[in-house]
Amino acid sequence: MTDTITLSRPVADFHVHVRDGDMMKLVVPTIKSGGVSLAYIMPNLVPPLTSVDDVLAYKSRLEAVDPTITYLMTLYLCPAITPQVIHNAAKAGITGVKCYPAGVTTNSEYGVASYAPYYPTFAAMEQEDMVLNLHGECPSGQHIHVLNAEQEFLPTLKDIHGRFPRLRIVLEHCTSAAAIQAVKDCGPTVAATITAHHLFLTIDNWAGNSFNYCKPVAKFPTDRQALLEAATSGCPKFFFGSDSAPHPITNKEKGQNAAAGVFTQSHAAAYVAEAFDQLGKLDKLDRFLCDFGRQFYKVTPAQDEPSWTVVLKKQQNVVPRLLGQGPSAVAPFKAGETLNWKVEIVDAV
Amino acid sequence: MTDTITLSRPVADFHVHVRDGDMMKLVVPTIKSGGVSLAYIMPNLVPPLTSVDDVLAYKSRLEAVDPTITYLMTLYLCPAITPQVIHNAAKAGITGVKCYPAGVTTNSEYGVASYAPYYPTFAAMEQEDMVLNLHGECPSGQHIHVLNAEQEFLPTLKDIHGRFPRLRIVLEHCTSAAAIQAVKDCGPTVAATITAHHLFLTIDNWAGNSFNYCKPVAKFPTDRQALLEAATSGCPKFFFGSDSAPHPITNKEKGQNAAAGVFTQSHAAAYVAEAFDQLGKLDKLDRFLCDFGRQFYKVTPAQDEPSWTVVLKKQQNVVPRLLGQGPSAVAPFKAGETLNWKVEIVDAV
Repeated sequence: MTDTITLSRPVADFHVHVRDGDMMKLVVPTIKSGGVSLAYIMPNLVPPLTSVDDVLAYKSRLEAVDPTITYLMTLYLCPAITPQVIHNAAKAGITGVKCYPAGVTTNSEYGVASYAPYYPTFAAMEQEDMVLNLHGECPSGQHIHVLNAEQEFLPTLKDIHGRFPRLRIVLEHCTSAAAIQAVKDCGPTVAATITAHHLFLTIDNWAGNSFNYCKPVAKFPTDRQALLEAATSGCPKFFFGSDSAPHPITNKEKGQNAAAGVFTQSHAAAYVAEAFDQLGKLDKLDRFLCDFGRQFYKVTPAQDEPSWTVVLKKQQNVVPRLLGQGPSAVAPFKAGETLNWKVEIVDAV
Repeated sequence: MTDTITLSRPVADFHVHVRDGDMMKLVVPTIKSGGVSLAYIMPNLVPPLTSVDDVLAYKSRLEAVDPTITYLMTLYLCPAITPQVIHNAAKAGITGVKCYPAGVTTNSEYGVASYAPYYPTFAAMEQEDMVLNLHGECPSGQHIHVLNAEQEFLPTLKDIHGRFPRLRIVLEHCTSAAAIQAVKDCGPTVAATITAHHLFLTIDNWAGNSFNYCKPVAKFPTDRQALLEAATSGCPKFFFGSDSAPHPITNKEKGQNAAAGVFTQSHAAAYVAEAFDQLGKLDKLDRFLCDFGRQFYKVTPAQDEPSWTVVLKKQQNVVPRLLGQGPSAVAPFKAGETLNWKVEIVDAV
């Protein structure tokens, strides 16, 4: 029985929300404690990060909190992101551009309503070999709702891939069997991130439980099964992106308009180990957490040389009820529950 | 343009939760203010009402709060409800028996796991012409979740109907196109109640909004459309049962295990008028609210002779944020929103 796993490298988490200000100071230190050394940082601050300077300034604020983490940065796609901005961003070392359909999730109100105006931007990204991160949902409407919003987006994914076949695209936090299949059907420039919480949740878990409510919502048991199979398949198109999304508990414990997002950063690798262990697939864990994402993103050793090692140990690990205190405390995923896996950080001596 | 509707009789609401104790005292007075003179009272108190004496005692407590309402009473199906209890209940004037599948909704933990043991009870009910009220959901499991739980129950409905074709059965608070079709497919002894809130809600409305979370959950836009069509169709198999379910606001504003239920009692007829008006079907309103249910239940004039009249007026009507005060206050459906219809009670002079 495997009860100690030393990861080949610390985890690379290719979808991270750490906000700004006090929340950033609370959450950034949990990147390392969750077993992660490389964090791909989402740009949906208030206001969103729509210029190279804003992104670089944010990166500096993150580094001031924990300089041992590698932060890969993204721009928020909006009309300001012209081809010229893309060329400047590439020079400045910005890795990607995140595209939010307008109005589908937290701070997406400045997002995209139509993709065609961005084709010149996508062409510049393809030329610069930058990565396009797609929040793959259509806004709800007459026939679109939270359960088919991702599936309805898949033709758009395929269309953009068809127009820009060399553009690397990540379908973020995919949640459905249909999305898994669509990513497989695309060429090797299309990949997908899978979160920790979607390996556990289905619709029943967020019905009446806003702590488990996120966008895209967790779907049916068959969808969860497809995510588990993809994550543990050894296929390099599927890698870890936690979409860990901290919200003050006062924005979650509400009767209406509870914030969408599940916070998993503090125990990221432990949750994923738990899910893989339940399937007897721990042999696939390292590549999902540490390898496939770095490969797809072409991360170089120079970008990412942590001085510490992650050891996963099979032992009882009670998830705290809250991170932080008072009205801005954050409830972690599975708060109060006991995991069977624990992250240990071994610093170089 | 119709802007005043005098109902032929006050509304009959064939699915009412008013709880007990202080909550009962808060909620029972809203039966009349919602336009209702006849309330079919659910037995899922804590503990549930599983004897004739308990039901009659509860009825007395309700009458002590508002003696002008006609309360039709039900028993909670469990092993105590033998054929002999059915005969006694019929003699005591109890109208029906409510069957809750174990564990699917508020206070259903004493409910039914298998129907076959109750066939003798159903036979006695058929003999006494009592009504069986079915909460039509299967408990969630490997392949069953909150969105298909009702559809998966429909074979059970058809099976019970086939075994007891003269037993009057109401599929309570139906929420899906599949359920509407199943009720139509059955003989005339099978009917269904439709709530006010399911005429408005779909899955998007309860995602992150526990105030709109209820069991059965609101489903897809196509399901809502089927409910609207059934309610406004003039088919006597579909009639009003609000399933108004008051919960203290502290049990709704939670990050996990928010109570399932939407409170509509205080504005019941106004909500339904609003929905029918949006479809241009106000001509079907009176029969849905006042007529078809009484017909199916064989309510006699002697049982139900209110001294007052309900007039619906098309005028701006702001739904209060809360009914009551403090931690046990109840948030009504569409709290803070403005309805276009208002219930006026005209007492006989």
